[in-house]
Amino acid sequence: ENWVIIGVVCGAAVLTVGILIGHFGIAKSGTSAPSWLKDVAKDVDESLIEKFMSEVDNIQIQENLRSLTKVPHMATTAGDEETVQIMLKRWQDPETGLDKAWREEYWVYLSFPDKNNPNTVTVVSPTNTVLHTIREKEKPYTPDQSDPEVVQPYAAYSPAGHVKGKLVYANQGKPSDYSELNKTVDLRGTIAITKYGGAGRSAKAINAAPYGVVGVLVYTDPLDMNDGLMSDANETYPHSWYMPPSGVERGSYNIDFGDLLTPHLAAKEETYRINATDITGIPPIPTQPIGFEDAYRLICELGGEPAPDAWQGGFNCTYNFGGPGFKPTSSFTNSDVKLDIYNYEEVKPSSNVMGFIRGSVEPDRYVIYGNHRDSWVHGAIDPSSGTSVMLEITRVLGKMVKQGTWRPRRSIIFGSWGAEEFGLIGSAEYTEQYFAALSERSVAYINVDIAVFGKKLHTAPVHQKMGYLTGAGSDYAPFSHYLGITSMDMSYTYDKTKTNARIYPAYHTAYDTFDYASKYIDPGFVGHQAVARTAGNVLIRLADSLILPLNCADYAESLEEYLSTALNLYEQKLKSMNISMEPLKHAVTSFRAAVSNLEKVIQSPDLANETPLKVRWINDQLMLLDRAFLDPLAFPDKYGFRHVIWASSSAGKQTFPGLADAYANAESSGQASDWDKVHYHLSVLSQAILGAASTLTDDMQTQTWRK
Amino acid sequence: ENWVIIGVVCGAAVLTVGILIGHFGIAKSGTSAPSWLKDVAKDVDESLIEKFMSEVDNIQIQENLRSLTKVPHMATTAGDEETVQIMLKRWQDPETGLDKAWREEYWVYLSFPDKNNPNTVTVVSPTNTVLHTIREKEKPYTPDQSDPEVVQPYAAYSPAGHVKGKLVYANQGKPSDYSELNKTVDLRGTIAITKYGGAGRSAKAINAAPYGVVGVLVYTDPLDMNDGLMSDANETYPHSWYMPPSGVERGSYNIDFGDLLTPHLAAKEETYRINATDITGIPPIPTQPIGFEDAYRLICELGGEPAPDAWQGGFNCTYNFGGPGFKPTSSFTNSDVKLDIYNYEEVKPSSNVMGFIRGSVEPDRYVIYGNHRDSWVHGAIDPSSGTSVMLEITRVLGKMVKQGTWRPRRSIIFGSWGAEEFGLIGSAEYTEQYFAALSERSVAYINVDIAVFGKKLHTAPVHQKMGYLTGAGSDYAPFSHYLGITSMDMSYTYDKTKTNARIYPAYHTAYDTFDYASKYIDPGFVGHQAVARTAGNVLIRLADSLILPLNCADYAESLEEYLSTALNLYEQKLKSMNISMEPLKHAVTSFRAAVSNLEKVIQSPDLANETPLKVRWINDQLMLLDRAFLDPLAFPDKYGFRHVIWASSSAGKQTFPGLADAYANAESSGQASDWDKVHYHLSVLSQAILGAASTLTDDMQTQTWRK
Repeated sequence: ENWVIIGVVCGAAVLTVGILIGHFGIAKSGTSAPSWLKDVAKDVDESLIEKFMSEVDNIQIQENLRSLTKVPHMATTAGDEETVQIMLKRWQDPETGLDKAWREEYWVYLSFPDKNNPNTVTVVSPTNTVLHTIREKEKPYTPDQSDPEVVQPYAAYSPAGHVKGKLVYANQGKPSDYSELNKTVDLRGTIAITKYGGAGRSAKAINAAPYGVVGVLVYTDPLDMNDGLMSDANETYPHSWYMPPSGVERGSYNIDFGDLLTPHLAAKEETYRINATDITGIPPIPTQPIGFEDAYRLICELGGEPAPDAWQGGFNCTYNFGGPGFKPTSSFTNSDVKLDIYNYEEVKPSSNVMGFIRGSVEPDRYVIYGNHRDSWVHGAIDPSSGTSVMLEITRVLGKMVKQGTWRPRRSIIFGSWGAEEFGLIGSAEYTEQYFAALSERSVAYINVDIAVFGKKLHTAPVHQKMGYLTGAGSDYAPFSHYLGITSMDMSYTYDKTKTNARIYPAYHTAYDTFDYASKYIDPGFVGHQAVARTAGNVLIRLADSLILPLNCADYAESLEEYLSTALNLYEQKLKSMNISMEPLKHAVTSFRAAVSNLEKVIQSPDLANETPLKVRWINDQLMLLDRAFLDPLAFPDKYGFRHVIWASSSAGKQTFPGLADAYANAESSGQASDWDKVHYHLSVLSQAILGAASTLTDDMQTQTWRK
Repeated sequence: ENWVIIGVVCGAAVLTVGILIGHFGIAKSGTSAPSWLKDVAKDVDESLIEKFMSEVDNIQIQENLRSLTKVPHMATTAGDEETVQIMLKRWQDPETGLDKAWREEYWVYLSFPDKNNPNTVTVVSPTNTVLHTIREKEKPYTPDQSDPEVVQPYAAYSPAGHVKGKLVYANQGKPSDYSELNKTVDLRGTIAITKYGGAGRSAKAINAAPYGVVGVLVYTDPLDMNDGLMSDANETYPHSWYMPPSGVERGSYNIDFGDLLTPHLAAKEETYRINATDITGIPPIPTQPIGFEDAYRLICELGGEPAPDAWQGGFNCTYNFGGPGFKPTSSFTNSDVKLDIYNYEEVKPSSNVMGFIRGSVEPDRYVIYGNHRDSWVHGAIDPSSGTSVMLEITRVLGKMVKQGTWRPRRSIIFGSWGAEEFGLIGSAEYTEQYFAALSERSVAYINVDIAVFGKKLHTAPVHQKMGYLTGAGSDYAPFSHYLGITSMDMSYTYDKTKTNARIYPAYHTAYDTFDYASKYIDPGFVGHQAVARTAGNVLIRLADSLILPLNCADYAESLEEYLSTALNLYEQKLKSMNISMEPLKHAVTSFRAAVSNLEKVIQSPDLANETPLKVRWINDQLMLLDRAFLDPLAFPDKYGFRHVIWASSSAGKQTFPGLADAYANAESSGQASDWDKVHYHLSVLSQAILGAASTLTDDMQTQTWRK
């Protein structure tokens, strides 16, 4: 069987798995030499990695998954607490547990639908007759979907409210979509139906409100997820991995990550909270996701002009803009669409479960491995595939620790994060609480959330793809963007040339169950096993290698690529504005020179006679390199993003994000003050890159500065 | 002779000079043990410190001072460049220099008077006859004052401008002073004369402008500086250390430190600069300092009501508010005071001179020692007393390094900062440029600016006083407040119970010369010698001690004192507002517990058998403790202040600055949103203190969190 492995690696100092840089042979000690001498000089043990790999068991992972997905475990529910207990029991097991495990609680601001007043979406006639009601819950195919704890599909953080209006079709809800639609249709007082994709969840409502749109529906178009397939008679789950017609992608409709009431502060019980009315980045108008079964009914009845070709989707009808509202021939003609949203917000305690293996030689260095625990429903793939893998890794490592056959050189922290689905809350609060210690000591963060995205459609033998962690798609974001810790997000996925599905189709639906996972995502769980082996291998190397397996030359290469793109895109125009890119060029050149010097030190044969403090010095340079790129003031409008190289960007260019966004903004506005911001970001970047280069020297002097 | 030593020590991990915590006896190595074993276990050598102390020579310091004060050396002038050359020559000396020394240049925004159009202050009659002209330059008593490079007294960063109006007397120019004065006098269109003291230099003008005041004069009242003495016939310099009647304190009239055009960015040639019009914290109206000889003439002629008792000063007349303007019996009656200010601003290259001694065992740990080099005029005391001391320390240490008899365990960086007088510019730009490396590696910063403030008036045998570095009085500020590096500011000073002089009286005048220093501040230079010995002793201990001589128990004590004060002042009221101080109490308790645990580790006899990495781990905890208190977002209105314990405060309470200021503000406004800010600052503090406590453990768990 052929598998495709995509490891998304933080562009940071890239993990060079399997390759060790430098070998140390400190002179053998005689009887009078201290006993610790051997320990401090010890490198990673390849036979131990072999042993680890061979013990990782696919059936154990399968059973982990079965037990984690017995019931829905949305954050802070009874089902969530059951998974907390599973984690604690496993990590505190006397034979296969960790040194210790404990719970860390945060009081976090969440949003739920009201069980007693389910959200409804209806088509109502001018005389207020309900002509059609959108399905309240997904259609059950296995008993899982009938569990009363399956949460009704909803848009978390959408405000409650009762709105009705004529329906319009707004494509993906991007700013350009509404602007285009507004040319033909007066949007005031309308309800917009939009497809997932193209814009963030909450952006679809945030972009709509300025036009006077009063409510937003969101659905998954079969073309974007199901390769066009729509029939649950024989095409969709339970017949395949495709989303059934009533499937609905739930989700958190917010832009910023972390608890929304306690920015920059860990959400402890008595922590100061901002007023909920001051939260930004959430929908200003009622919003509700629906299935494509219902969306089909609504969209194909719409009147008005046909929407542009690019807006058409998988339904066998023309997608019209809306008159606004339905076409004259429709039984819905003149009717409104009505949203009755009863979502409520509540501050509730959410738990991270933490596990710890104390390092033998450098206990004050942390390798962190984590995944969230909470799901929207049963969450077999998202996130329990990752949690099952984590539990198998900790079982094998824990056994060795308990048996006394192994203890890592550096400490290992395991995190089972809570409330990720509501905006990476558990991991974000953790990084806020332990900001100082984590910044000073963390070697790297490994994230395995969705361990296996799929396998059915592969034909390529082995397909490797690496990317940069510039977004906030999972719990790596607070580590990478807020703390500047070198991070890796790893998963097994399908060949994206073989399907248009933008993610596995049961994502965030009631169909993401053990049945689905074991039948359509990874039968036999060998994909999971491969991820566990790979992630565990990386983890052990980070924990045990004498010299950290972080390759700073890759970092220089990334900066050079970014620079080259930036020069192509911007230099000519900036020159004409009297803004020089020379300082940025010098900075990147200097960085490369500093990296080359460090590499020479690492490869120096003299190292063999050096002290453990020299090795530590080299490792500290590698470990802290990413931290040097943090600027807490560089992106005042992007919460939690402080890394000037890897921050998210909306400009869609593969280059420095602050520069790209500032340039796009200045180009569009043409204002002098916006060109000033481009110049400012160039200076921020040059200073950060030169500052990082200076951390790779002993006296902070780099080549360029000395001229 | 009796001396008074005041060491102002950053409340941070306080340097426990002379006390070594923990002794290490790592098992002696046999022939087969590696050669570095002895080096990594070596502790500070007391005999070396003895040797250092005995070689520090008062006459060398005297000659250093003589050569540094030959000519005026205001920042970026030819005289400044002469001192750059002196520093480079000394630090590059093959026999007594450092490993290396170099220049670091920044392009900084400075403000100067125009040599060709000197600022003038005149009394002009209604017919525009000039009745009186304020003295343009100080009266010469030694040839020094006649040097054409003596800069005219001026208020740096005061805008140029031509204003006139009736004179009023506004005491110290505090907000309360103007508010009081405004009850009696219509301030619109007036010129205010104010005394130094009570409010920051630029604040006197910033506070005035909202009342419609159009210009500000500032003078030194003889009561505040000269113990009332005024006559240069026999009372003031050259007859004593007191300020002559024409003496004027120059100064930088700005609030924020660092280059004003490049906040948070090192001011390199091509760095982005904000518009000068966007600078805040500088006088909005023309401002000029004058001598008390002229101030006497102006104030004693003022009309209007007598000013309150507390506003009266050392002149033998009643200080009136001003009619506004002069009294009817004065020859100045009906006349205006006119300011013609020609100050101009210019971006000019300013140099730091850097020196480096590479550490033998931990080259990636820095002990930093610095002082500024620039003065307003000859600057014998400010700053050349400190520079003379620094040069003597580097001479003695440099000789040992060059002879191969000593090399510190850790690296030592020496900084001779430029443009401090304009707002700590050289040191601030340096910390911005090397933010990452300095944050990661700096053990401590030692500042010796004015080494000796005076000695004539002492009677107390030995007078020790310690304070916290909460302000921005010298170059420690960017290290302590911006980078969170444990800092110390050290000097020798007079007994403040014996004189009301708020500083040595020649401060920032043309009389701060070698003659003045050697006659009235430290004849024989033994005060300088004592400072050099003490500062060098601390420096060597920081550089060589196996365990850093930073006492974290003192930190716990400071927090407990702050807490106790805060509880007394605020708890009852806050309770009534439903704001709990319990989290802050828990945080401080937790911190104390963590400190006690670390102390046990440090004192553990088992340490003798531990690895060098264990020692490093302990030292890293001590070194990085202050860093844990940084919050770059805690004080958005205080540029450069990020340390939540030691930041400056205007509330005048010996407690947590953010809390004290927020409380004072809320109490005065009574607004709910301001009480919210009190709550916010309590959370910021609790999180920072708990976060710092967690850095003193291996797994980040502290007592309180575990309950």
